Amino acid sequence: MAQMTARLRVGMLAPVAWRVPPRHYGPWERVVSILTEGLVARGVDVTLFATADSITRARLAAVTPRGYAEDSSLDPKVYECLHIAAAFERASTGALDILHNHFDFLPLTYSRLVSTPLVTTVHGFSSERIVPVFRAYNSTTHLVAISKADRRVDLDYAATIHHGIPLNEFTFRPGSGSYLLFFGRIHPDKGAREAIEVARRTGHNLILAGIVQDPEYFRTAIEPSLDGQQIRYIGSVGPTERDSLLGGATALLHLIQFDEPFGLSVVEAMATGTPVIAFRRGSMPELIDDGICGFVITAGDSDAATAAVGRIGELDRKAVRAHVERHFTAERMVDDYLHLYQRLLGQDVATRLSTASKGDAAHAGPQ
Amino acid sequence: MAQMTARLRVGMLAPVAWRVPPRHYGPWERVVSILTEGLVARGVDVTLFATADSITRARLAAVTPRGYAEDSSLDPKVYECLHIAAAFERASTGALDILHNHFDFLPLTYSRLVSTPLVTTVHGFSSERIVPVFRAYNSTTHLVAISKADRRVDLDYAATIHHGIPLNEFTFRPGSGSYLLFFGRIHPDKGAREAIEVARRTGHNLILAGIVQDPEYFRTAIEPSLDGQQIRYIGSVGPTERDSLLGGATALLHLIQFDEPFGLSVVEAMATGTPVIAFRRGSMPELIDDGICGFVITAGDSDAATAAVGRIGELDRKAVRAHVERHFTAERMVDDYLHLYQRLLGQDVATRLSTASKGDAAHAGPQ
Repeated sequence: MAQMTARLRVGMLAPVAWRVPPRHYGPWERVVSILTEGLVARGVDVTLFATADSITRARLAAVTPRGYAEDSSLDPKVYECLHIAAAFERASTGALDILHNHFDFLPLTYSRLVSTPLVTTVHGFSSERIVPVFRAYNSTTHLVAISKADRRVDLDYAATIHHGIPLNEFTFRPGSGSYLLFFGRIHPDKGAREAIEVARRTGHNLILAGIVQDPEYFRTAIEPSLDGQQIRYIGSVGPTERDSLLGGATALLHLIQFDEPFGLSVVEAMATGTPVIAFRRGSMPELIDDGICGFVITAGDSDAATAAVGRIGELDRKAVRAHVERHFTAERMVDDYLHLYQRLLGQDVATRLSTASKGDAAHAGPQ
Repeated sequence: MAQMTARLRVGMLAPVAWRVPPRHYGPWERVVSILTEGLVARGVDVTLFATADSITRARLAAVTPRGYAEDSSLDPKVYECLHIAAAFERASTGALDILHNHFDFLPLTYSRLVSTPLVTTVHGFSSERIVPVFRAYNSTTHLVAISKADRRVDLDYAATIHHGIPLNEFTFRPGSGSYLLFFGRIHPDKGAREAIEVARRTGHNLILAGIVQDPEYFRTAIEPSLDGQQIRYIGSVGPTERDSLLGGATALLHLIQFDEPFGLSVVEAMATGTPVIAFRRGSMPELIDDGICGFVITAGDSDAATAAVGRIGELDRKAVRAHVERHFTAERMVDDYLHLYQRLLGQDVATRLSTASKGDAAHAGPQ
């Protein structure tokens, strides 16, 4: 029992749009899952606030039966606030050393009512209109940016921590691949139409995978190009098929039309050895070692993107994988967050963390 | 200074869709204004949490520049949570004896993080989907129903308090009126189409006043009937025109298609002496003394509503006004809430309240 109380106690506040881990789509929930399981493996006492059907080795605390994106009978606004309040109520009892928010801005407004330190990973700013909340609560939450590109000059940050992925879920494939791949939400931001254009100009096959987030865009800009042969759409792909789909590609086309704060699919593709051709926007230059892991192209220059496809053969897929092994593993991300917690909590907790770092996972099973 | 701390300190949490008091439409904000000014007149130390352009003799605390229904550049979700949090943060400093929530369900989820007692006036349940929050926080908020009809059997209430209105804003008119009146949101719930049908069948003129909440309904069900003579739509009407518009009517037609939790316009019409013909739904039987103040008709029976118009001459408009004077004054509402606060806060505050009841308004100006 003494050992229990000596362990670092982290509350992890996930979004409740999707289950943790998500069945197929849900990047915020996916990062929460990777971090949570990584911390549990280090012996940290994690309480995961997430949907009731979530799967974790942490202690699960749930008030939302299912993800509201998976069950339209659930009112998002109702379950958001019930869920967030439950985490802060737990914090108010003194049961958590730190509360780590992955749920955008609403939790910030509860932060002055508890004394528990709040870390907030900003998974992206959906709109300029939400920034006033981050500004108002900048002093009561330790913000973490997920890329240098996503840092705002008008906010103070405690750290920039790139996401990491579990390498064991991604198999290195040395072959040169047989198709170009678009992997992401079907939405103008993500550049599916631009990927189709490049595929057509190069004559390569293209597979598109991802949820349809913008049905009108899908109907008008994507569907007319689908021929079941050269250009194919296969829907949203879960963890099982993802590995072979990414690994079997010649290149991932990531011709984004917005400043993407991070690109999980970019890192996942590279983990299988598949290089990435991306427009130079948002975090892309931070993720892709240009000329080694793929090509980072002037935004909007589809001639250059087309030319880059012809140069993919110059790249060494082993070097692509190695870049992820060096910079984007789950272990590196977990280390970075543990160091942040340590820095924020000070010396007395540092002792507990150093115990946790020994990774005595036998004490950290489901409870 | 000793006198200041002896006064009862109430935080009044208004919605921020509209200014307090609203310029024209905004029934929740209107009730907040009536209650706030009434409490200030009794010497209560009220902090009104509302939009920055609100007008009050209470201490105004504002983080929302304008009502989000009046300025579409404001993100409702962002300003809702900033606004609500500001009230709870004030409560957490111990600066309020009681916090009185008029802002629906979201504030309930902050209630367990402060020790200040929370009173919540439920201005209506917009949907069955929001009820889980009221259930989850029923033990940490003292719910007030605004009518017996709006009480849910699955919730515990501290009181039922009908709204009251400032009688001095409504002039009694003895005349028999020259038109039928529809006064409310243009929305299927409110029965504008049914009012038009009754006006046509009786040959009376009809004036429709109110915001267009459902543009499609307005376009298809209302607009084709507008002839600028017998059936006229005059838009939304502010406080100045409201008195003469209500008082000049033969009857208010309130042929509602939903269980309305309260009807401010019903009480306001009666305050000018104008009787009301209403369908028997929601709170209508509680507001209208049937056969004295108007006629409460079987819901959906437009033959009966049409017949009732022919019997309006039988009613004594003085008796209609008298009913409001007895049951629906601002003073009665303020008394009811003061008694509730007293009951909830117990003896030590009872002493302060009895001081407040002497109405030493000289100490309660804007601060």
